[in-house]
Amino acid sequence: MTRVHNFSAGPSALPLVALERARDEMLDYAGSGMSIMEQSHRAAVYEGVHDEALALIRELMSVPDTHDILLLQGGASQQFAQVPMNLLHPGQSADYVVTGVWGKKAIKEAKLVGQARVAASTEESDGKFFRVPSQDEIKLDAQAAFFHVTTNNTVMGTQFSHVPESPGVPVVLDASSDIMGRPLDVAKYGLIYAGAQKNLGPSGITVVIIDKQLIETGRRDIPYFFQYRTHAEAKSLSNTIPTFGVYMLRNVMLWLKELGGVSAIYKINQEKAARLYRVLEERSDLYQLKVEKESRSIMNVTWNLATAEAEKACVAAATKAGLIGLKGHRIVGGLRASIYNAVPLSSVDALCEFLGNYRP
Amino acid sequence: MTRVHNFSAGPSALPLVALERARDEMLDYAGSGMSIMEQSHRAAVYEGVHDEALALIRELMSVPDTHDILLLQGGASQQFAQVPMNLLHPGQSADYVVTGVWGKKAIKEAKLVGQARVAASTEESDGKFFRVPSQDEIKLDAQAAFFHVTTNNTVMGTQFSHVPESPGVPVVLDASSDIMGRPLDVAKYGLIYAGAQKNLGPSGITVVIIDKQLIETGRRDIPYFFQYRTHAEAKSLSNTIPTFGVYMLRNVMLWLKELGGVSAIYKINQEKAARLYRVLEERSDLYQLKVEKESRSIMNVTWNLATAEAEKACVAAATKAGLIGLKGHRIVGGLRASIYNAVPLSSVDALCEFLGNYRP
Repeated sequence: MTRVHNFSAGPSALPLVALERARDEMLDYAGSGMSIMEQSHRAAVYEGVHDEALALIRELMSVPDTHDILLLQGGASQQFAQVPMNLLHPGQSADYVVTGVWGKKAIKEAKLVGQARVAASTEESDGKFFRVPSQDEIKLDAQAAFFHVTTNNTVMGTQFSHVPESPGVPVVLDASSDIMGRPLDVAKYGLIYAGAQKNLGPSGITVVIIDKQLIETGRRDIPYFFQYRTHAEAKSLSNTIPTFGVYMLRNVMLWLKELGGVSAIYKINQEKAARLYRVLEERSDLYQLKVEKESRSIMNVTWNLATAEAEKACVAAATKAGLIGLKGHRIVGGLRASIYNAVPLSSVDALCEFLGNYRP
Repeated sequence: MTRVHNFSAGPSALPLVALERARDEMLDYAGSGMSIMEQSHRAAVYEGVHDEALALIRELMSVPDTHDILLLQGGASQQFAQVPMNLLHPGQSADYVVTGVWGKKAIKEAKLVGQARVAASTEESDGKFFRVPSQDEIKLDAQAAFFHVTTNNTVMGTQFSHVPESPGVPVVLDASSDIMGRPLDVAKYGLIYAGAQKNLGPSGITVVIIDKQLIETGRRDIPYFFQYRTHAEAKSLSNTIPTFGVYMLRNVMLWLKELGGVSAIYKINQEKAARLYRVLEERSDLYQLKVEKESRSIMNVTWNLATAEAEKACVAAATKAGLIGLKGHRIVGGLRASIYNAVPLSSVDALCEFLGNYRP
């Protein structure tokens, strides 16, 4: 069996030890005579995994007692709707910083729920985004129900180095593609959500970290299942949770803890990004970095070649060399390497070597 | 490794071959050098699995071209809200047949969305349900937006032998716990939904089979993500789907097809239920069957002993004998054996032998 170098944007690479454990325990979890997938979500065996997953998220992100951690379904796309359904009361308006396609989708959903406005946008006339805005470009509404920011933009490869603020207004972060990739001061945020399939585990689980006050004041005139309080009160077991997804997330969290936690992986992530950007800059004869330097993502590195044909040839050559998932998002083209937590430095080095030596 | 006899109500037993395949392919799916969990949901490798899963559901249930098959998230509980959000237009009312806790939950959500009424209920004064209603007990509203029926009630162990009708009104079935357990004439129904974790696969995937006309006429003033058309138009890939869950569902569908499909498993399910009810009737000195005979479920068999203590002792003795998951739902107590598709006849025989010989 040869494992490839996986640069997919999500679902994406998982730590080998997390997969090996899943393989070894597939038919018999912890001597129970059943797969973890076959356990009742109300049985002690599964509840142990569930509680451990929640405790590990709390520990690794230093989530304060003021915040609940929920394990939901539907991905970030469901949160685009669920956040305003809960937090946007009639007569209120919400602020959105739009730095890419996900922010655009998020505000589109909010506008079906209530009032929402663009507090800042870095969209170019061709619909592309090459940077994130500075704090003073953002026009804040001090009365906003919440202030929504996408911390990292997978499609364009931009990322906020400092998350913008809106004094007195709860800040909501879509941190799907950089959660646990770098430290975050959770106490500063009203709500943080993330689909698991980049840094946390497989697709199908959404982590929501939410200030208990926002749960308490959230709307009660929406379906119970979409109210955050329903899940907070039931420890995310109000209905059948994707048990295997939580189990895999738990395995990934154990790997991250063993490795030294978020501060340790952040150093590795910075090093991975630095090496990759360096080789792309060195070969500026061939590769174009379009994202502004200050807005470069350490999770998704994007670049172009002179033509779409040249890009296609480069992706094909990389694939042949065992470097998978480098085709850019269909909206922007080019190439993209997603170098999430579980992508090892050795994979990035293999990519750097390929890119450094590549001759069209 | 000793595998136990698993009678859990869901998540529940999975076919051994489906699990073995998952184990064997965990680190390298089909020579791709990645787990299926690590594949992009836009990559050809995953799309092959996705398309096969959809095609197998269509084939096994003989789903006509008039209906779309959607793979969603959130379980039946999310559908309790999503169905009325889509189908219940302002000014309309929906009809619910209430035969258990799930039907009660479903109508509770509908009432937060719009108007809903109980067309029939078999609830006793103590909140329990021992039967399903006959067609002539149901008071129909010919103008209803839809007519909602829970085909099988996991908690009490009741099941409709013939699904009730409401002429001219789209019938919506919550078939979570008996989908593919017996044949169903899909063409007769407007919408059929089912969480996967009983007969179809692991938790985290919801199958929705819906008349295309209901997609077309569904509400457009709800968040895009909750509109069925969003998922129908994108072949259930509008956002990142729980890829591993779909893969496991595909594995289970392949097992069912190999076994002879729904009509073949229906015969086996009938035989399993017959053997179990027989031994419970034979030992009427010890076991009480409270569900009316005509309403007995072939998926969830429930019974009582004289006291809660006697029940606890029986569950403990069974667990010791490798018969797992027999404790009744917390709402009703007693014992329950869930004998879904993947529970083999041999497990039922082991249970029958235990129950026949059990001495308190």
